[in-house]
Amino acid sequence: MVATQTASLTALRKASTTRVDATLNALFDERTVVPRLDDAMRHGLLVGGKRLRPLLVYLAGQALGARDEDLDAPAAAIELIHAYSLVHDDLPAMDDDELRRGQPTVHIAYDEATAILAGDALQTLAFEVLARTAHPRLGNLVMTLATASGRTGMVAGQALDLAAVGGHPDVDALAHMHIHKTGALIVAAVRLGGLIAVDEADPRLEALTRYARAIGLAFQIHDDVLDVTGDTATLGKTSGADSARAKPTYPSLLGLDGAQQKARILIDEAIAALAPLGEQAAPLAELAHYMIERDH
Amino acid sequence: MVATQTASLTALRKASTTRVDATLNALFDERTVVPRLDDAMRHGLLVGGKRLRPLLVYLAGQALGARDEDLDAPAAAIELIHAYSLVHDDLPAMDDDELRRGQPTVHIAYDEATAILAGDALQTLAFEVLARTAHPRLGNLVMTLATASGRTGMVAGQALDLAAVGGHPDVDALAHMHIHKTGALIVAAVRLGGLIAVDEADPRLEALTRYARAIGLAFQIHDDVLDVTGDTATLGKTSGADSARAKPTYPSLLGLDGAQQKARILIDEAIAALAPLGEQAAPLAELAHYMIERDH
Repeated sequence: MVATQTASLTALRKASTTRVDATLNALFDERTVVPRLDDAMRHGLLVGGKRLRPLLVYLAGQALGARDEDLDAPAAAIELIHAYSLVHDDLPAMDDDELRRGQPTVHIAYDEATAILAGDALQTLAFEVLARTAHPRLGNLVMTLATASGRTGMVAGQALDLAAVGGHPDVDALAHMHIHKTGALIVAAVRLGGLIAVDEADPRLEALTRYARAIGLAFQIHDDVLDVTGDTATLGKTSGADSARAKPTYPSLLGLDGAQQKARILIDEAIAALAPLGEQAAPLAELAHYMIERDH
Repeated sequence: MVATQTASLTALRKASTTRVDATLNALFDERTVVPRLDDAMRHGLLVGGKRLRPLLVYLAGQALGARDEDLDAPAAAIELIHAYSLVHDDLPAMDDDELRRGQPTVHIAYDEATAILAGDALQTLAFEVLARTAHPRLGNLVMTLATASGRTGMVAGQALDLAAVGGHPDVDALAHMHIHKTGALIVAAVRLGGLIAVDEADPRLEALTRYARAIGLAFQIHDDVLDVTGDTATLGKTSGADSARAKPTYPSLLGLDGAQQKARILIDEAIAALAPLGEQAAPLAELAHYMIERDH
C-alpha cells in the first residue's frame, strides 16, 4: 500500500480498510472476560462503517513518509473512538437509533446496559492500542486523540448537537457544533498519521490540519445533503431523519444549492492547503473530491 | 506529605485528598466548549467520594521513593476513571441510582444524555492527564490504566455484576466479579504510583500488586457487610439496597461472621505482602486495617 500518483483512491481505500480491519479483528482473536461484552464491542465496530478516519491516518502518514506498519495502531485507535461514539450516540437517551448501516444498533442487538459498557470499553481500548506502540511521541499521540475526543472535541460536539434539537441555530452555530462533533476526530486522524512520521513542530502537520478542517466540515454538509437527497436503502439509515427530528441542517439554513456550493468551496480550500506536501498528497486531494461525491 | 512512620494515616489521607482535589479542580479552572458538560463532569467527580484510589497512588509511590508532584497526574487520572464508572453505573439502564453520597447522581442533577457524555469525557480526560506528564514510562502507565479499566478489568466486572442480578453465583464467581469490578482499579492505583518511581520489572511492583489484590477484595466484602449493618444516613446511599435487588453478596453466601472473617484474613495477607517494602510501607499497612474498620 504505497501511495503513488498512479494508485487509484479506490485501491488505497481497499488496502486501508483491509489493514485496519485486520488490526481491529486481531483485538478480538481471543475472548477476554465476558464474551458477550467482546461480541457487543465487535458489533459496534462492524456497524461503524466507512473506515474514513483510518484512511486519513494512512494517507496523511504516507504523505509524510511513515511506514504502514507504524500507522496500523493509530488507524485502529481512531476507529475505536469513532465506534464508541456511535454506540453511545445511538442509545435511547441520545439519538435513539435502532438501525445503523442496515444493522441493528448495539443496544438493540444486545441491551442498553451492554451498549453503554461496550462503548466505554471501546474507548479504553483505543488508548490501550496507542500505548502498545511505545512510540517515542506517544505523549503527543495520546494528547491528540484525547483532546479531539473529549470535552474539547467530539463529546462537546455531541452535547452541542443534543442542545440544538428544536432550537434555531444560525450557520455559525451549526458549524461550531460540527467542528467539534465530527471535525475534531477527522483533524486528529491526519495529525496522528503525520505524528508517526514527523514531530509536532513540523509545518506540514499544520497544512494537514487545515486540509482536515475543511474536508471535515464538507463531509458533514454532504451528510446533511444526503439526508435530503438519499434514500434509506442506500444510506443504511433512515432518510429524512434530521428533518423529522427538527434538527437544524445546512440545507435547512442555506437551501440545498447553497449547502452544496459551500461544500465545494471547502473542498477547494482543502486541496489548496495540501500544497506544501507536494505530489505525495495526491491521494488526499482525491479523497477530498470523494467527500462530496459519495452517495452514502 | 512525606510518608514517615510517625505520620498518622488520617493526616496522609487529608494531604492526599487535598492534592488530588487541587489537581482535579484545576482541570475545571476554565470552562471549555459546553459549560453544562463541564459542570456535569465536575458533579460526577464531587459525588465520587473517598478518594481511596488517589491515596493508594500516593502511598505506593511514596513507599518506592516517588515525589508527590510526580504522583499528582496518576492520582487524578485514576480518580477520573473511577468517577466516570460511577456516573455510568448509576444510569437507569444500569444500577438506576438516584442518590450517591447524599447527592443526586449526575443523570438526576442533569439528564441522562448529559450523564452518558460526562462519563465518556471523564474517561477521556483520565488519559489526557496521564499523557500530559510526558513520563518516560508513559506507555506502561497508559497500559496499566487501560487494561484495568476496560474489557479486561472494571468494565468486565460491571458486565459480570449486571449478569449476576437474580442469579445464584458461588463465592468464587462473586470474587471473580469483584476482582474485575473494583479490584482491577485498586491494583492499578498502586502500580501507577509504583511505576512513577521504578520500572515494570522491579519486584516491589509485584509485592504492591499482591497487597492491592487483597485489600481490594476485602474492601468489597466490607462494602457488602456495611450494606447489611450500616444505615442510609452514614452510608450516603440506600442501605439494604443489595438485598432489595436480590444481588448476591458475601454476607448472603458466607453469613455476616463468615464475611467479616474472610475480610480479616485478606487484610493479614495484604500486610504480609508488604514485607519487601520495609518501613516505608507502614502507611499502606495502616490503610489495610482501615479498609475493614470504616463505617461508610
